[in-house]
Amino acid sequence: MSIANPELDFRVILDQICAEMQAAPHRGEAAQYIPELASIDTNQFGMAVALADGRVFVGGDADRRFSIQSVSKVFTLALALGRLGEDLWRRVGREPSGLPFNSIMQLEHEEGIPRNPFINPGALVVTDAILAGHAPREVLGELLRFVRAAAEDDDIHIDEAVARSETEHGDRNMALAHFMAAHGNFRNSPALTCGTYFHQCAIEMTPRQLAMSGRFLVGGPNMPGLIARDQVRRINALMLTCGHYDGSGDFAYRVGLPGKSGVGGGILVIAPGRASIAVWSPGLNQYGNSHLGTLAVERFAQATGWSVFG
Amino acid sequence: MSIANPELDFRVILDQICAEMQAAPHRGEAAQYIPELASIDTNQFGMAVALADGRVFVGGDADRRFSIQSVSKVFTLALALGRLGEDLWRRVGREPSGLPFNSIMQLEHEEGIPRNPFINPGALVVTDAILAGHAPREVLGELLRFVRAAAEDDDIHIDEAVARSETEHGDRNMALAHFMAAHGNFRNSPALTCGTYFHQCAIEMTPRQLAMSGRFLVGGPNMPGLIARDQVRRINALMLTCGHYDGSGDFAYRVGLPGKSGVGGGILVIAPGRASIAVWSPGLNQYGNSHLGTLAVERFAQATGWSVFG
Amino acid sequence: MSIANPELDFRVILDQICAEMQAAPHRGEAAQYIPELASIDTNQFGMAVALADGRVFVGGDADRRFSIQSVSKVFTLALALGRLGEDLWRRVGREPSGLPFNSIMQLEHEEGIPRNPFINPGALVVTDAILAGHAPREVLGELLRFVRAAAEDDDIHIDEAVARSETEHGDRNMALAHFMAAHGNFRNSPALTCGTYFHQCAIEMTPRQLAMSGRFLVGGPNMPGLIARDQVRRINALMLTCGHYDGSGDFAYRVGLPGKSGVGGGILVIAPGRASIAVWSPGLNQYGNSHLGTLAVERFAQATGWSVFG
Amino acid sequence: MSIANPELDFRVILDQICAEMQAAPHRGEAAQYIPELASIDTNQFGMAVALADGRVFVGGDADRRFSIQSVSKVFTLALALGRLGEDLWRRVGREPSGLPFNSIMQLEHEEGIPRNPFINPGALVVTDAILAGHAPREVLGELLRFVRAAAEDDDIHIDEAVARSETEHGDRNMALAHFMAAHGNFRNSPALTCGTYFHQCAIEMTPRQLAMSGRFLVGGPNMPGLIARDQVRRINALMLTCGHYDGSGDFAYRVGLPGKSGVGGGILVIAPGRASIAVWSPGLNQYGNSHLGTLAVERFAQATGWSVFG
Repeated sequence: MSIANPELDFRVILDQICAEMQAAPHRGEAAQYIPELASIDTNQFGMAVALADGRVFVGGDADRRFSIQSVSKVFTLALALGRLGEDLWRRVGREPSGLPFNSIMQLEHEEGIPRNPFINPGALVVTDAILAGHAPREVLGELLRFVRAAAEDDDIHIDEAVARSETEHGDRNMALAHFMAAHGNFRNSPALTCGTYFHQCAIEMTPRQLAMSGRFLVGGPNMPGLIARDQVRRINALMLTCGHYDGSGDFAYRVGLPGKSGVGGGILVIAPGRASIAVWSPGLNQYGNSHLGTLAVERFAQATGWSVFG
Repeated sequence: MSIANPELDFRVILDQICAEMQAAPHRGEAAQYIPELASIDTNQFGMAVALADGRVFVGGDADRRFSIQSVSKVFTLALALGRLGEDLWRRVGREPSGLPFNSIMQLEHEEGIPRNPFINPGALVVTDAILAGHAPREVLGELLRFVRAAAEDDDIHIDEAVARSETEHGDRNMALAHFMAAHGNFRNSPALTCGTYFHQCAIEMTPRQLAMSGRFLVGGPNMPGLIARDQVRRINALMLTCGHYDGSGDFAYRVGLPGKSGVGGGILVIAPGRASIAVWSPGLNQYGNSHLGTLAVERFAQATGWSVFG
Repeated sequence: MSIANPELDFRVILDQICAEMQAAPHRGEAAQYIPELASIDTNQFGMAVALADGRVFVGGDADRRFSIQSVSKVFTLALALGRLGEDLWRRVGREPSGLPFNSIMQLEHEEGIPRNPFINPGALVVTDAILAGHAPREVLGELLRFVRAAAEDDDIHIDEAVARSETEHGDRNMALAHFMAAHGNFRNSPALTCGTYFHQCAIEMTPRQLAMSGRFLVGGPNMPGLIARDQVRRINALMLTCGHYDGSGDFAYRVGLPGKSGVGGGILVIAPGRASIAVWSPGLNQYGNSHLGTLAVERFAQATGWSVFG
Repeated sequence: MSIANPELDFRVILDQICAEMQAAPHRGEAAQYIPELASIDTNQFGMAVALADGRVFVGGDADRRFSIQSVSKVFTLALALGRLGEDLWRRVGREPSGLPFNSIMQLEHEEGIPRNPFINPGALVVTDAILAGHAPREVLGELLRFVRAAAEDDDIHIDEAVARSETEHGDRNMALAHFMAAHGNFRNSPALTCGTYFHQCAIEMTPRQLAMSGRFLVGGPNMPGLIARDQVRRINALMLTCGHYDGSGDFAYRVGLPGKSGVGGGILVIAPGRASIAVWSPGLNQYGNSHLGTLAVERFAQATGWSVFG
């Protein structure tokens, strides 16, 4: 990766991207499995870039809150790796799945060990691991403190209505949890871990807050040092190989940067050494990732020339 | 990625790695499916690093020839992308497979479209695409010219005995080829394409030659510009997400650099902007990748601090 | 099928079979997933034959109670077909599964519709269908009345300790239930239907009682007419194609009669027009069916010459 | 099964069925994979019943020749069981597959052992077993002699145009053959066995001839005793559990008699002790079995009251 061209005009880049995205004819469809997400206006689009030098650029609906959903898996993974270290990998793999995000087929084939921490069963195991006898409230408190510290912003909360709705429509995750419990890969009751998981997914953030909160994965002298550099690299590696479900290879090919998406339409993207980028648009593509969000970060990578691949 | 420490002493690093590898108690087992590979002495280990500044460092059996096998898929992919461009992706995907390298199951599920160009069915499609009515001899000649130009070394050849043996034991690849033909995703006869493929896999190179031949994927002012920079990035992205079969996530996590392995025990690793690294040791791990080779490049990445992930 | 040889000496046949089974060196292992089944003495063996002419012959431990487990699926299917008729088949198929009895893989592939009523997810759907807003106690009462009427014996009960233990170890069935609920193929809460299902599986019967209770599937003038003749045939067809999980083809090949097994070691076998046969021995074979029970009914079919296949 | 009502008027039954089938609005679509089958007029329908008492009844196009295709698997299985006996089951299973007829997925999961002799890979193994070093011409000659003897009719031949076309479109079967060869479950070259198989599938018969040829599976004093009674039962058991691909359970449920279908639109059905029934109509249902043929034998079973299930 060459050094970023110092005269890159991020203001212009973001304005162009926002203009293109606001005019885009195809925007995808919002996630349909809970009413709170299904009813969202897919015309919304927001983006924020937090540079390693401290500057922050935003565009579009950068200060509107959205449900980060699976982007939260990055934060719980960071907590779990900090607490358990390499022992975590006894309970979850780190290979791309080659299957949709909530597949139970792979779990059966591999006897209750999920392929990676970013598909649903893997994220459930990670949450189950950090619960470990604690009360859900404590663990969720710790998670919020971590995210707020990363973002340097205390105004980050859980949307209780979304958490409740997730619980009511949570049969598939409950199935995954019971299935892993049947294979001895669960420590708490499925209802307890799933309840915690549904709350972690219901964290609300703005694109600006999300970009800020990702700076601990950028590395560099001015970035928050919440976890060791080795762990930063490993989380970025997992984001690149597994961060977009069964569209991870496509994202790596088109964007060339590690990223993690959520069905709320948010994506957190890391340009190591350079910036943390957040984008949000609720319409999803066939893989369950934000359609315009993916396109926007592809444009951003083209405009900046940033890529981890040369 | 930070700039390489200029005082890195590659001589010392390679000596230490070679010493560790030569003393390693567990070396894996050589590939067993053809006698030519099965009979190889697994005590061998060689490594070579071709830096962007033109320096080359080697260690161990760096000048012994081995069968590059699936590392050849990198070169045929470069040829195919050069010739067909994005049209290639109508016939092969670019997602990790989540299954062993020669699985036919995924092909059935996805109707004859292989997941990526680095698993066997995908590589067969790539070879089928560059054959496209040409005689196998012509295509193999073009491939050798490409590899020799990349390596700046004309002494690179096909081992006919290995090619013949692959053909005799080629039922599984023939099955994959006929299966894709049945789905309309084959242009030449399965026997013709498989024959070409078996010859491409039988290219012999030394670790030194392989490191040299990978410099077109490093980028930078002094590196061979055989393909466009965009294509370099894309091939590196595919190597990172799919280059080690069902151990790709593990390699990305441990090594943090794009790489492509072959069952002959070779691995080509790219540190974008810095170096092309080749390593060879015939014993394989559970994924079919070189056991010591993987360990050696992990050590090398630790010693240099090189990683695309920060 | 030719008419049974009238001079068949069932007394002698059963004595020979019991002698062979009591001396058998390999007896299989009892089901291990709940302590109540795991601790059973696998030296036990009992058999009973209830002929269409009213005679009953028994051998071995024919009056010892055992947990009928999945044999109960025959009775709930009879109830469900009586109540819902062909509408039942909107929620469950009638094809052999080609997979182990509790596989969740097929459910994913076929979007929550189990392959047949005799694998666990299919039986859960059947129980869910007959629950249909009723209290579990009512439905279990109706089931017991049906079984008692069929067996002409009121001394048939549910073993509450087994039901409780099933509930405690019921994660896999809970996973299946939540999974089907996620696909919209469940009407009651997973916990309610699973609780009912665990109780139905915990019905205790003796081999004599079980043979008597199967006479409604034999047909003929003196047999209980609890369901229509068409339904009798259909249940027998399902028992033959799907009654022994992934060993159904083997059972049909070796025994040639419809049968349904349970992990408690019981098997109910129907010789249409001739007899209802029950056998029990707790040791299981690789498919989860009674090892000696299967062998015993194979011997019985050989000795009598009975087969539906000619 | 009760004794056939002696006053059954087969003439009337067949006339009614033929009238219903000729008026049927939905007839399915002919197999499309070779032009010889794709071009067949789906308005054709023929049926023949060869009773155990020697009488033969026919209706519709009962004397028109059609390609028996997979119905031939019954005859090759009979030959193979006669020659190899139970040893055959080391190379092929006898369980329903739970997957479409030409699935390669199961083969991978079970390491080259097909589930049963009636799916394509299983039939290829059976043909490979009877080839066993003989010339294809010899084996095909023996097969024709067997079929002619069974049918008491020498005017039964192979349609060379169909055999040739099968070969030209035989990639999927070649894939299956090479795949099994890769697992060591093939004795002859894939091309040789597939060539023989394509010829066996290209046998042409009329419904009348097919009904006659199935009498060796009926049993009884006047039926051809080409194979032992035990083998008759076993073949009938396999036909019932596996004879209609992934629609076998449905056929057993609706018809209640063993049968084997072919993509040419033919079905051979056995009523043990009573009759051999052949039906032909080229339009296929979703499982690849004759749509009207299945309906016709269902009607026939209803009209006669015949079922192996009571």
